[in-house]
Amino acid sequence: MQVSLNKQRFIDSMKKQSKIGGTNGGGLHRLALSDADKQVRDWFLKSMKNACLEVRIDKFGNMFGRREGTDSTADPVLIGSHLDSQPNGGIYDGALGIVAALEFIRTLNDKNIKTNRPIEIVNWTNEEGSRFQPTMQGSGIWAGKLNISEELRKEDENGKILEEELERIGYKGEEPVRPSENYHAAIELHIEQGPQLENNGKSIGIVTGIVGLSWGAVTFDGEAEHTGTTPMENRKDALVAAADLITAIRRLPGSLGSHTVGSVGSINIEPNSINTIPKKVTATWGIRDPNDEIVTQGRTRVIEEAEAAAKREGVQVEWEDRARSSSIRFADRTVQAVEQAVEELGYDAQTIYSGAVHDAANMANVCDTGMIFAVSEDGKSHTEKEYTSWDDCYKAANTLANSSLYLANN
Amino acid sequence: MQVSLNKQRFIDSMKKQSKIGGTNGGGLHRLALSDADKQVRDWFLKSMKNACLEVRIDKFGNMFGRREGTDSTADPVLIGSHLDSQPNGGIYDGALGIVAALEFIRTLNDKNIKTNRPIEIVNWTNEEGSRFQPTMQGSGIWAGKLNISEELRKEDENGKILEEELERIGYKGEEPVRPSENYHAAIELHIEQGPQLENNGKSIGIVTGIVGLSWGAVTFDGEAEHTGTTPMENRKDALVAAADLITAIRRLPGSLGSHTVGSVGSINIEPNSINTIPKKVTATWGIRDPNDEIVTQGRTRVIEEAEAAAKREGVQVEWEDRARSSSIRFADRTVQAVEQAVEELGYDAQTIYSGAVHDAANMANVCDTGMIFAVSEDGKSHTEKEYTSWDDCYKAANTLANSSLYLANN
Repeated sequence: MQVSLNKQRFIDSMKKQSKIGGTNGGGLHRLALSDADKQVRDWFLKSMKNACLEVRIDKFGNMFGRREGTDSTADPVLIGSHLDSQPNGGIYDGALGIVAALEFIRTLNDKNIKTNRPIEIVNWTNEEGSRFQPTMQGSGIWAGKLNISEELRKEDENGKILEEELERIGYKGEEPVRPSENYHAAIELHIEQGPQLENNGKSIGIVTGIVGLSWGAVTFDGEAEHTGTTPMENRKDALVAAADLITAIRRLPGSLGSHTVGSVGSINIEPNSINTIPKKVTATWGIRDPNDEIVTQGRTRVIEEAEAAAKREGVQVEWEDRARSSSIRFADRTVQAVEQAVEELGYDAQTIYSGAVHDAANMANVCDTGMIFAVSEDGKSHTEKEYTSWDDCYKAANTLANSSLYLANN
Repeated sequence: MQVSLNKQRFIDSMKKQSKIGGTNGGGLHRLALSDADKQVRDWFLKSMKNACLEVRIDKFGNMFGRREGTDSTADPVLIGSHLDSQPNGGIYDGALGIVAALEFIRTLNDKNIKTNRPIEIVNWTNEEGSRFQPTMQGSGIWAGKLNISEELRKEDENGKILEEELERIGYKGEEPVRPSENYHAAIELHIEQGPQLENNGKSIGIVTGIVGLSWGAVTFDGEAEHTGTTPMENRKDALVAAADLITAIRRLPGSLGSHTVGSVGSINIEPNSINTIPKKVTATWGIRDPNDEIVTQGRTRVIEEAEAAAKREGVQVEWEDRARSSSIRFADRTVQAVEQAVEELGYDAQTIYSGAVHDAANMANVCDTGMIFAVSEDGKSHTEKEYTSWDDCYKAANTLANSSLYLANN
């Protein structure tokens, strides 16, 4: 059995959600638990009810809609993503996966298709982590990785408390934040947020896993001296040591693996004056690879390079790990369901690792999970310039529909 | 004729001024035109009057005290420095030169010494430039390098206007801000703020000139992409280009000259997130050398290195000059007056270039000028840890007194 979504209605829904929190620059500013988030949730709630879904909202605001299967005791298939956005982000990141899931349900209704298993669609609370940290909060609690009491107490930079904001917008539900039953499988559709599919001329990515990651920070501590009066040989310049490390991390992937990436994304410098030698510089590292062994090696090399740079410049060095996540390899049967769907639909696709982490990483903690990527123009994301053509969005949505349909019947 | 200052009274005055705006850490927080600046000016004003000086305050708050010579028509000798400090700076920077000048006058009074020429002592307004920019404002206007109307309009970071602050503390005087007559010579005593004297076991620096300087900023502009999803070969990382430049500038002096210094003191980075490739990084350069030719070569090399780094990383690059000052070579006769004084006093001294700019650079625009450095422990300055022993402070003050006395009689 193959389904084909209603393209115009799908595009209309994508446009509709993009106006809620939409920016003048054509992007989306819809931070978690903001007024815009409330409005888009209201729209999503109404849309789920109109599609005859049985709605549940849990105590962290995660929104589920269930369409019963012919076997209501069978483990359901879960599909969805998130409706919150980055500050001045794009209109596809997260929302595409929600609108496609909704449209899939509408199409099943239109065509009066009964699936064997129940299907649930979900909007996870605060995937982005830009207003409240960490990222993927809703799915993280649901999957048992985060503690709900701690997360409800989190504050944004204005001191607003997460739980109060959840109550304020009316989305603190009654359901416990955990899987209500066993799930048969989960699929998330998301934009790639990288350039690989476009570089290879593909519309669809069959995601086989999510890379492992090491995040941390190195702090170099030297001496804040006058830049004019201190001879070169007396300087202990923390920024010079940091520069050595930045260069080393740029070079590192080339000697580790063909899928390794690494960079220094942020720097803190004191006193940061044109006339004073930098005393203290903190540089954050990020190293990712599908192979956890390589991530471990990369982290070791970062520390070795930091020590060498510190010695060279005569400064002190400390480091701390900030995050470590193991790579995820999606289950064969979910990956195969996606492969089969793109093959039947005849789309240009390739297998791909996700370089970013997604709610799917948490769903994979609970059941066999897969992901579908839609090509991102220029790989741009977290910006108003994020773009995927409606044709490519539609292909990705059809892939989600057909792979989910297959899983719901098998 | 040789004079010897009253050591205890000199130390007492140093301690007295150090309490006005003194910090718990033993430093000084006495920003220009702050309440602390008003208090120390009140103390200085009273001290000048008690020493029977004829006081003038000009429209920019520069404070002069004149002791008449036997020939009141002779061009006077000008000595002084500044009483304002850096935020949480040290108790010697500037103040040592003022207290020594004051103590010199008191000693002349004690011993009833008449000099041939008049002697004027001066406290220049806002040498530090940390609250209002630029540095050396008072002496800069006086020397004709800055425009008084423009400088009076300057605002601090809280929007307070310089002229209003000057009026508020009661130090907007009536005198025009320009040399009231020809000056025979000027001498400034200051701490070294560098480690050369200590490294060579000397107490006193006979400053022969001030190095030339090139300050500027290079901005690299790349692409803000996701650090996980962007393949290494697709990255345009502005921070990597900046790191190349920082390393190149660290190396540069070694191929330019034995007195050349250079560094990147400050960095601005956007968006500065662990998870985003740095899009825009601005790095400031500073290059100094006693030889202006070498400063020019250094600036050219910085720009060449910036272009090479930008090309290597595929980012855009722009640069701007922020300051350029030519080196100053102090007049032989003022340098010789200092040399003669340390020789007669039997102090361990050496000739030295000043790596920092001082009010003396502006005085040198008006008349033959010299400078005396007191050794700085560990070369530390602009910090509460700034330190010069009372013995070394006293030696430097005696050097100021005797070189000024010589100039005032010849």
